[in-house]
Amino acid sequence: MINTLIKKIRQVDAPIVAGLDPTLKFVPEHIKQKAFEEFGETLEGAAEAVWQFNKAIIDNIHDLIPAVKPQVAMYEQFGIPGLITFKKTVDYCKAKDLVVIGDVKRGDIGSTSAAYAAAHLGKTAVGSGLIAPFDEDFITVNPYLGTDGVKPFIDACNQYNKGIFVLVKTSNPSSGEFQDRLLEGGEPLYCTVAQKVAEWASLSMDTGDYSNVGAVVGATYPEIGKTLRKYMPKCFILVPGYGAQGGSGKDLAAFFNEDGLGAIVNSSRGIIAAYQNEKYESFGPENFADAARQAVLDMREDLKNNLG
Amino acid sequence: MINTLIKKIRQVDAPIVAGLDPTLKFVPEHIKQKAFEEFGETLEGAAEAVWQFNKAIIDNIHDLIPAVKPQVAMYEQFGIPGLITFKKTVDYCKAKDLVVIGDVKRGDIGSTSAAYAAAHLGKTAVGSGLIAPFDEDFITVNPYLGTDGVKPFIDACNQYNKGIFVLVKTSNPSSGEFQDRLLEGGEPLYCTVAQKVAEWASLSMDTGDYSNVGAVVGATYPEIGKTLRKYMPKCFILVPGYGAQGGSGKDLAAFFNEDGLGAIVNSSRGIIAAYQNEKYESFGPENFADAARQAVLDMREDLKNNLG
Repeated sequence: MINTLIKKIRQVDAPIVAGLDPTLKFVPEHIKQKAFEEFGETLEGAAEAVWQFNKAIIDNIHDLIPAVKPQVAMYEQFGIPGLITFKKTVDYCKAKDLVVIGDVKRGDIGSTSAAYAAAHLGKTAVGSGLIAPFDEDFITVNPYLGTDGVKPFIDACNQYNKGIFVLVKTSNPSSGEFQDRLLEGGEPLYCTVAQKVAEWASLSMDTGDYSNVGAVVGATYPEIGKTLRKYMPKCFILVPGYGAQGGSGKDLAAFFNEDGLGAIVNSSRGIIAAYQNEKYESFGPENFADAARQAVLDMREDLKNNLG
Repeated sequence: MINTLIKKIRQVDAPIVAGLDPTLKFVPEHIKQKAFEEFGETLEGAAEAVWQFNKAIIDNIHDLIPAVKPQVAMYEQFGIPGLITFKKTVDYCKAKDLVVIGDVKRGDIGSTSAAYAAAHLGKTAVGSGLIAPFDEDFITVNPYLGTDGVKPFIDACNQYNKGIFVLVKTSNPSSGEFQDRLLEGGEPLYCTVAQKVAEWASLSMDTGDYSNVGAVVGATYPEIGKTLRKYMPKCFILVPGYGAQGGSGKDLAAFFNEDGLGAIVNSSRGIIAAYQNEKYESFGPENFADAARQAVLDMREDLKNNLG
């Protein structure tokens, strides 16, 4: 699956992921009003508003980007109707030939991770058949439980040609509390996790230089990114934290390999809520999807200027 | 919320959680057959089979136990229909006066954890109203992202009278890979996480001795349980790994405080799939719910004999 992502990155010449993390605050009034008129101020109404919002943005940016990353929490907050919108969003993006990274950060003991892997990457056996419940292309995975909690996801990568990104160093301010702890020997925990991710990566190499097993390292920690790039040479790094969280284009070079590949940079609010940003406010709420397109174009430019 | 759990534990005199983690392998043929006849071999059919299975077990054991712990992965593997069964199960258990621990192991950056907290413990603002999407009583939380990824769950505990159990030392074989790593100074990571959990616990004390913030420590590591019991005196410990995963009654004393409280022991397969266990096979698949009841009675006895 990593080769599919690489091919798409080359086609559009932009290592950009649009984070589809809608909250109702990002959805323009006219869309909410229409959805609430039809479904009331209910979870169904909220989910419909998010769906219309997503669809307009996807329609307007799909030709510019290789991948999207819907954050499932933003859909779970609207209960079952929200998860129906999550699934519709996954399917719609795949139909538009986008690679879909389900940002689900799942991870549990082996038998439970196997169920999550079936839910999001693989298939569930029902009677004599096999059914793919959510069927994303990649998902994010939490490593805290160790190898037997991650292995079922790797198995699903191999069986169904899928991929995962394992959390190594996250973009948030408190990420250092545990991830940066120095172990006996002097290395921080994130290095130990990265070593393990490199091992896991060797279990699901795609044809070519890269593995279907990648890592998550926040743009907000470029020095750490530089170190971790070397620990996991075969891993693509999914880089959150660009834009709204404070990471900038000049911080990103460290995350890429010399072949110009090896990383993909996520922006969520910076793209989908661009019209609420002073820089793009002239678009107005009616043209939120055009503002999103302009934000992608500007991000592409910023990356080009800084990555050469 | 921890006081509600304590009250229930005292009422039934058993610190037992029944893990509602159904896979289709656990569901007797006659139930699957009926569900597939009605809905086909589809996700809807599978979800219906799981729902009928859950309902029969809950009906048969609810008077013996204080709490249940549905593992959401086992429902996610059946897609949207599975999640509808998850929600129905939560609601049904609450109507039977059971405390519901959603085993969701969520955890992300702050804004995302806030959405998960709204989904599972709190409410989501939609228009002028507030709606509770899944509304469990407790959930499990992954600590890898640190304080700002956990704080939104604690805020929800305080705002909505709910609780959480934070992963400290999990029951699976690989849990030591990261959790047991010795830090500079010589303490394992799980102790550092436990210290942080004790801090978080102080932010959501219920009236009385215990906090709404508890911890997860596997029955499979009783020596570690003994250590961690001291690090987190105000925390209830949710103890998975009893029975099928290898933990036994005599391992459990270490997890309790001197007041006889402070822990609650989960059994999943050991209860819900008891009829598949040699010990209870005389019940037969038709009487799977009676086998589950007997397994709870035997577990209660085992705990009494070993905890005194």
